[in-house]
Amino acid sequence: MNPICIGVVGLGNVGLGALAILAENAAALEQKLGFPLAVTAVCARSIDTKQLPAAFDGALRTANWRDVATSPNVDIVVELVGGTTVAREIVETAIANGKAVVTANKELMGLSGAALWKTAEAAGVPLAMEASVAGGIPIHAVLREGISGDRVTNLFGILNGTSNYILTEIERNGSAFDAVLAEAQKLGYAEADPSADIDGFDARSKLTILAALAYGARVLPTDIFTEGIRRIGPIDFAYAHQLHHTIRLICAARETADGVLLSVRPSLIPQSTILASVQGAYNAIWVKGAHGQDTFYYGRGAGPAPTGVAVVSDLMRVARDLKTKAGASRVSPFAFSTLTEYKPVPIEKLESAYFLRFRVKDRPGIIAKLALTLANQGISLDAVLQLPAENWRDLPFVITIEPTTEAKLRAALAEMEGEDFLLEPPLAMPMEKSL
Amino acid sequence: MNPICIGVVGLGNVGLGALAILAENAAALEQKLGFPLAVTAVCARSIDTKQLPAAFDGALRTANWRDVATSPNVDIVVELVGGTTVAREIVETAIANGKAVVTANKELMGLSGAALWKTAEAAGVPLAMEASVAGGIPIHAVLREGISGDRVTNLFGILNGTSNYILTEIERNGSAFDAVLAEAQKLGYAEADPSADIDGFDARSKLTILAALAYGARVLPTDIFTEGIRRIGPIDFAYAHQLHHTIRLICAARETADGVLLSVRPSLIPQSTILASVQGAYNAIWVKGAHGQDTFYYGRGAGPAPTGVAVVSDLMRVARDLKTKAGASRVSPFAFSTLTEYKPVPIEKLESAYFLRFRVKDRPGIIAKLALTLANQGISLDAVLQLPAENWRDLPFVITIEPTTEAKLRAALAEMEGEDFLLEPPLAMPMEKSL
Repeated sequence: MNPICIGVVGLGNVGLGALAILAENAAALEQKLGFPLAVTAVCARSIDTKQLPAAFDGALRTANWRDVATSPNVDIVVELVGGTTVAREIVETAIANGKAVVTANKELMGLSGAALWKTAEAAGVPLAMEASVAGGIPIHAVLREGISGDRVTNLFGILNGTSNYILTEIERNGSAFDAVLAEAQKLGYAEADPSADIDGFDARSKLTILAALAYGARVLPTDIFTEGIRRIGPIDFAYAHQLHHTIRLICAARETADGVLLSVRPSLIPQSTILASVQGAYNAIWVKGAHGQDTFYYGRGAGPAPTGVAVVSDLMRVARDLKTKAGASRVSPFAFSTLTEYKPVPIEKLESAYFLRFRVKDRPGIIAKLALTLANQGISLDAVLQLPAENWRDLPFVITIEPTTEAKLRAALAEMEGEDFLLEPPLAMPMEKSL
Repeated sequence: MNPICIGVVGLGNVGLGALAILAENAAALEQKLGFPLAVTAVCARSIDTKQLPAAFDGALRTANWRDVATSPNVDIVVELVGGTTVAREIVETAIANGKAVVTANKELMGLSGAALWKTAEAAGVPLAMEASVAGGIPIHAVLREGISGDRVTNLFGILNGTSNYILTEIERNGSAFDAVLAEAQKLGYAEADPSADIDGFDARSKLTILAALAYGARVLPTDIFTEGIRRIGPIDFAYAHQLHHTIRLICAARETADGVLLSVRPSLIPQSTILASVQGAYNAIWVKGAHGQDTFYYGRGAGPAPTGVAVVSDLMRVARDLKTKAGASRVSPFAFSTLTEYKPVPIEKLESAYFLRFRVKDRPGIIAKLALTLANQGISLDAVLQLPAENWRDLPFVITIEPTTEAKLRAALAEMEGEDFLLEPPLAMPMEKSL
């Protein structure tokens, strides 16, 4: 049988990882597909320095992506350059030239995925993006087909490996945030500019995509309430553990009476839940279905080989679409054949128990004052925790409150703002008791 | 767009569960597919007693499955009667009449799946069986498409909810096996004849199917070494916990130098592994890929609604095949377009550390004797454990041994057979340290 021909644009770690898998698994892939995959063109800025598997010696090598995106010898273009400008041009040019597209670009797909899918659909070519979220975990395949008969009610994900690594290191070693971040940067686990990871923006792009897949809604990254992990320290874990919880950067999607509420924020989760056992750079997604109930998916969030598997699996899917002439229509990359407009639900609508961590200059009456402020909003205290402290001038303690709305909590926090005993604004985190 | 028409044979819990989902999620399913699904025929032995969702009032109701399997108004036949005789006839008749088939029948597919797939392929109709293994977990979708680019090296599954429930109850309460089994029977979690569950045969059918999906091999249930959980008691958990392990009925597939080694048997797994947190009737599968490394999938193993989701998701997949005229060929239900002959690897080839539990009449020199017998086979002791005992006439204790082959272990166990101090043959379980 004739091969399906692949052109790869971008030969960083993931590109080289995917090529290695395509070469090493070639026989098994053909046994699965019933036809072979061939790599006929590759592009990288520094193409002369790139060494490919010997099987792809005959491939066109170029530093100009247009050679790949317009080549008559390419059926599927793999976009692995990242970013949202050139990458978008590559995807659009490939589609305009009748090529199918596979991309690992969460930023591009989170921002413009719905529009690009419309373009691909109009051109009758498949578009696939399994590698854009949670590298080694086939969560797209799961939501698009595996459990597509179900209605997702809630989804909770740990989707950023770097911030999970930092949090679990703080938890394990009791080191301060800045020290762990510096170490992670030295080890290459965190970027020189770590903002995308630790401020939640990377996770937000991924939740944008998963929310579209789960709910069929056209979500924008800016629709999602996002809070990073910069303020989390060892003291927060100490208190969380006292409550039999741990802390993770949780990407959450919840069905509410007002619609789907989306958030990325550090949250307390029970230590007994399987999600709490996700350590280091691993990713995981917990899905609650109206019928299938709880399912849980876990694996490596990144890395050339796990993400390479996602790219190659997408290539197989798209190659099958091309062989069966399914056009663009077989399964939308967003699981739904049409996406509806998303109406953001403000975070104030969240109903949850909360963990409030204060740092104060100690003096009598502080807890009474804070309790009164909370009571003024109709908020009930659940527990007050104070671990043995070393310094009465900088005393951390924790109040947990019974389920309330974030609106009421925020009103109470606003009222506390003027208090001179507070060394910094209270740190508030939801406690995800339903996991 | 014209609907794809479904006929359901078998209206037990799963059948009614699937129909409820098809009715309740109809709008969302159409938004995903771009066309509707219709239920046009249903069959049950006691059809008169069955109440269907109002949406399917117009469906043909019959007690004769042939009416469904031959109906010109049915595109996909769903086989939910179970067993291997009538069920096989239903599937074959449906295929012969040009119908696609969706089945939840692990026993039939484990035994005759490869042959039925050949028949379906020759007839050009899709055949799907997501619901046959691990109800709510879309493990077929994962292995067939989600991570199809990878090469599976090892797979470890907890695939029988009843035995997992019994084991975790023994672990939690310290009750004896028989008492927990009787309680499980009373609660309806175990059958009156519990053999299929507790002797590992149900899990074996499921591993037969997963091994075919992971390795592209035509496996028979009888190719798989199988041992049940009847001998596991609270004392085994007490010793396992001392070693920071727990005990689960593990379905294992491992690449070895000799081929793929398959087994179903109670095994020790580290408490720190995510697999150890699988409690009660949940199922889970741990997959190790040559490239994607560890991925883990967890969910309900059974139940009308979770299994119903698997059936409905299969119906969507098959309906798409029919709409895109993909014929039988798009993705084999066994992931590989052709299956190779499986050459069983005997359990004697297994290399593992082991946990050996003895029950003896105490007297001096027993441990020395056992250690000598093990040493004669070149087996090194790792630890000897003895919890405070109540009765020196029936003393349980444990020896763990360093990695060796099962062949050597069996030779040593055979040599021990004659020892008069043994109250019963030693219980040997592998320790899965690689998880």
